[in-house]
Amino acid sequence: MTRLADALKSTAAAVNAELDRLIVLPDGPESRVHEAMRYSSLDGGKRLRPFLVMQSAALFNVAEGAAIRVACAIEMIHCYSLIHDDLPCMDNDDLRRGRPTCHRQFDEQTALLAGDALLTRAFEVLAGEATHSDPAVRCELVAQLAHASGADGMVGGQMVDLRAAEFTMDVAAITRLQQMKTGRLFGFSCEAGAVLGKAPAPQRQALRNYARDLGLAFQIADDLLDVEGDAAEVGKKVGKDADAGKATFVSLLGIDRAKAQADMLATQAADHLEPFGAKADLLRDVARYIVERRS
Amino acid sequence: MTRLADALKSTAAAVNAELDRLIVLPDGPESRVHEAMRYSSLDGGKRLRPFLVMQSAALFNVAEGAAIRVACAIEMIHCYSLIHDDLPCMDNDDLRRGRPTCHRQFDEQTALLAGDALLTRAFEVLAGEATHSDPAVRCELVAQLAHASGADGMVGGQMVDLRAAEFTMDVAAITRLQQMKTGRLFGFSCEAGAVLGKAPAPQRQALRNYARDLGLAFQIADDLLDVEGDAAEVGKKVGKDADAGKATFVSLLGIDRAKAQADMLATQAADHLEPFGAKADLLRDVARYIVERRS
Repeated sequence: MTRLADALKSTAAAVNAELDRLIVLPDGPESRVHEAMRYSSLDGGKRLRPFLVMQSAALFNVAEGAAIRVACAIEMIHCYSLIHDDLPCMDNDDLRRGRPTCHRQFDEQTALLAGDALLTRAFEVLAGEATHSDPAVRCELVAQLAHASGADGMVGGQMVDLRAAEFTMDVAAITRLQQMKTGRLFGFSCEAGAVLGKAPAPQRQALRNYARDLGLAFQIADDLLDVEGDAAEVGKKVGKDADAGKATFVSLLGIDRAKAQADMLATQAADHLEPFGAKADLLRDVARYIVERRS
Repeated sequence: MTRLADALKSTAAAVNAELDRLIVLPDGPESRVHEAMRYSSLDGGKRLRPFLVMQSAALFNVAEGAAIRVACAIEMIHCYSLIHDDLPCMDNDDLRRGRPTCHRQFDEQTALLAGDALLTRAFEVLAGEATHSDPAVRCELVAQLAHASGADGMVGGQMVDLRAAEFTMDVAAITRLQQMKTGRLFGFSCEAGAVLGKAPAPQRQALRNYARDLGLAFQIADDLLDVEGDAAEVGKKVGKDADAGKATFVSLLGIDRAKAQADMLATQAADHLEPFGAKADLLRDVARYIVERRS
């Protein structure tokens, strides 16, 4: 997996450099919100979603300068969701990516505003001319990212998650929840490259299928890490789901079946990439990495 | 002012009808977040910003069906900012538009998510094809609204407001703060019509100038209402600024000078509309109404 590790590292560096350019510290006292945006988006995380954007864009020979902006927009959405998720009224978490959460490092008000501002900036970046010469493509990216991350996507999934105790959460319900909460953003990350490259419908569909299986495999692996992982390695608190008495893939399927299911989904995800041949090898590596990672 | 009152009422009804169509209750348990979005955006408020969009669009003969979507997008941004502003970690307000605030009616988590979802939906609506046939126009609307409401606009203004105690807030500093916190969104509301109508630069500038003076007049009037207003009439708590020992236009200028200043700005705002002749009469009425309103 050295090939993948190198590629992930190189994408992470490019994303950091671009985020550094996209979130500029102003002179006024409002700079505190920019500092918090930078704290929570720079220098952290595996940058998996940006990597999916860059790799799917590469399939269609999209210019890196365009793809990196979309990658950063998605990462901003991901980071805003983490900041708001960590707030005292939500998960009340102290640790994220091995560092104090945003509201611990700053304060609750600043964290709330930094999340709002990252969410807003994501759309500003997508709509900017540097993202694509065709404004129809930029509009499609905005509309799709909004749909993936809003009330019928990620935010809706968070709502379902909060209400999970009110309902019988069987595997079908957990699958739907996770598809909303994390799957949609994975899906957009993979499809964004096809949108940028104006790819034909069958290729877009192939990437959507890949993303669907990848997202579920990722979530099952996440549930497994929460049970089996080491907090220092994972970079956040573990054992949270069991403590909260929450139904997860692992609690419903057991560790062994959950592992087998994740493994099957990763294989299936890779199979969807057949139309792209060897160009998609790094995306195949990602599917494998996602179920084998330890953080 | 019957003419203006009628026009405001008719715009408010159209905005409600369109928001009702734009925020659809789904079947799943995520519907709670949609309910909260609807609770905080339907049937309330003066709809001043939407009115500014509709009136500025009418100057350029923009189709109402397009303008109303932009009007709703701005109102969604305004409503999200009120939901997050009212949260316990911010102003901790119980009353908004004469009703329980979102987190009082639902809970903190739902309010946080409803704010996030309204913010996200605003951009989805702007990017949608029904907003304008030219995607370049839709992208410009997305980019401008994001800029007006993000870290260098409204959210930045909220950050400055939170930190006001750390700085000497003289009239210049308060003016800058308010231009960020409320002025930018007023500015976008007025300019949006010109963007939709692809208006020439001088007419765009005239609307920007109108919005700048209108926004400041609005804020001074707001400060006056906080001192002189009646909570039942205003629909939210009054006397908050004085209780918090906050510098405002009224605390810095005194009531009489603040009134004179608001009056002068309203007149000046109306003067900028000269190029539009009688077509802009309702916008002139708004400037007058804004400094004479009692809620």
